[in-house]
Amino acid sequence: MCESFVTIHPKTLINGIVKPSQEAFISVDERGFRFGDGLFETIPVHARIPYLWGYHMERLTAGLKALRIDCDATHLQPQALRLLEQNNITEGVLRISISRGIGSRGYLPFPATLAPTIIMQTLNRPALPKEATKLWLSAYEKISPRAMPTDCKLAQGVNAALARMEAVDHGCHEALQCSAQGHIAEASSANIFWLEEGILYTAALASGALAGVTRRRLMELSPYPVKEGLFTLDNLQKAEAVILTNAAMGILAVESLAPHGFTWTSTALATELNALRNADILNSLLQAKP
Amino acid sequence: MCESFVTIHPKTLINGIVKPSQEAFISVDERGFRFGDGLFETIPVHARIPYLWGYHMERLTAGLKALRIDCDATHLQPQALRLLEQNNITEGVLRISISRGIGSRGYLPFPATLAPTIIMQTLNRPALPKEATKLWLSAYEKISPRAMPTDCKLAQGVNAALARMEAVDHGCHEALQCSAQGHIAEASSANIFWLEEGILYTAALASGALAGVTRRRLMELSPYPVKEGLFTLDNLQKAEAVILTNAAMGILAVESLAPHGFTWTSTALATELNALRNADILNSLLQAKP
Repeated sequence: MCESFVTIHPKTLINGIVKPSQEAFISVDERGFRFGDGLFETIPVHARIPYLWGYHMERLTAGLKALRIDCDATHLQPQALRLLEQNNITEGVLRISISRGIGSRGYLPFPATLAPTIIMQTLNRPALPKEATKLWLSAYEKISPRAMPTDCKLAQGVNAALARMEAVDHGCHEALQCSAQGHIAEASSANIFWLEEGILYTAALASGALAGVTRRRLMELSPYPVKEGLFTLDNLQKAEAVILTNAAMGILAVESLAPHGFTWTSTALATELNALRNADILNSLLQAKP
Repeated sequence: MCESFVTIHPKTLINGIVKPSQEAFISVDERGFRFGDGLFETIPVHARIPYLWGYHMERLTAGLKALRIDCDATHLQPQALRLLEQNNITEGVLRISISRGIGSRGYLPFPATLAPTIIMQTLNRPALPKEATKLWLSAYEKISPRAMPTDCKLAQGVNAALARMEAVDHGCHEALQCSAQGHIAEASSANIFWLEEGILYTAALASGALAGVTRRRLMELSPYPVKEGLFTLDNLQKAEAVILTNAAMGILAVESLAPHGFTWTSTALATELNALRNADILNSLLQAKP
């Protein structure tokens, strides 16, 4: 799963102000830098329309509330559309990050309400992998939702980065991470689903999984009944097909889990569900452009 | 416990280059900002000498290795001393942060080895609190060391910030955090020790506690035998005195734990141990300036 996203697009928005991306800087005193004290969203863009914008803003708003960052995310769309136009993006990815702002140097935000920093960038859509995903069972536990709101996209990426590097060490594309209790949670940057006897299963958010927007939409679009729960690797072993969901990549077939030697034939399921998602994207575009 | 640290000193070092602090900026693409993908150290400075520099660099080096950030922290002292001189700091705090650098936009660092960003700042020493610390038992679990190297000072501060805000909501100064298993770990920004029948107890790092430099030095200086372990609130309830340790603040007496209603008389112990620490600081200065 290639996530290099290396092309830099000409413009970046900082608190609504257009900057040349080479000059898009923040203070070293920004708590987003000091502590990862913020959130982000990565939103796929099709025909210059951010897909499932409302779902992304719902999650972002929930995260801002959980972190007590005083920012109204419901008014961001005009800025986002302006940036897509300025960077001439029709197909790509919009990245929005909101961090707490510049405040005290200790953990306690002081004063309690700071002026947050809102960054918007556009990115190329990552290339879809040419082969089905090989998973490595990570030694890095998923962080518990009792430690922080793991269902939101927090700017706290060390756990995911470590799991991902470990997977690559073992010749795999992605890491499968479980909770401290051994329940399947998610991949380092994707939710996981699997099909068994006509039912599509996925990890409940209590596992530490992100409330992925693609996860949420797939649960609505799925032609199979969906069951969320706390499952173990035994459940996964019995699966007929396994997929990952990620907003920027869509739905990816999973081929195997190492070092356990589990293998699946998942391409047909991924193709079927991606077709439903693509139809949904098209439908959303038709609704957006009457 | 006041951590506002608000005074901005004139100069900041970025990768060894002196910048006016108002112009100390980093790219929005720095992984330290995007994901909190980095580490920091907060080192007390006395008579322009960073106290226990070697211990801080040992922990920083261990963290860089755990995160696979390619940076040799053993050569930073000349830069640090230069900054202390430029900012005319004799008494204060030196903050060093090392983040992974600018790379891919996904969790996987790509290429694997990036050019890290090293920031050095000086801060005022925080004012010591006028009264003994009131702790609030946090609803936010400490993150497990099986999720990431919690013994190092990771730039992943959301858990600590949430715990601290919650404590302040309840009229307390600091949060006491436990592991998922209910073992005492630490406060949001300090290690915890308690005295019972002539033995000084502290939480083992397996609880998710930071390998605090003040914790480490106190274990060496303590006139009481020290036992590390996985303890519960029952152990704390039986304690005769409770203290917190933090590099910038030294040793703080703890008065109570709410909402449990535990109370202690800890000022004498804190005074005794701070006197030992102050003697150690003086001794380190005499050794540094022959």
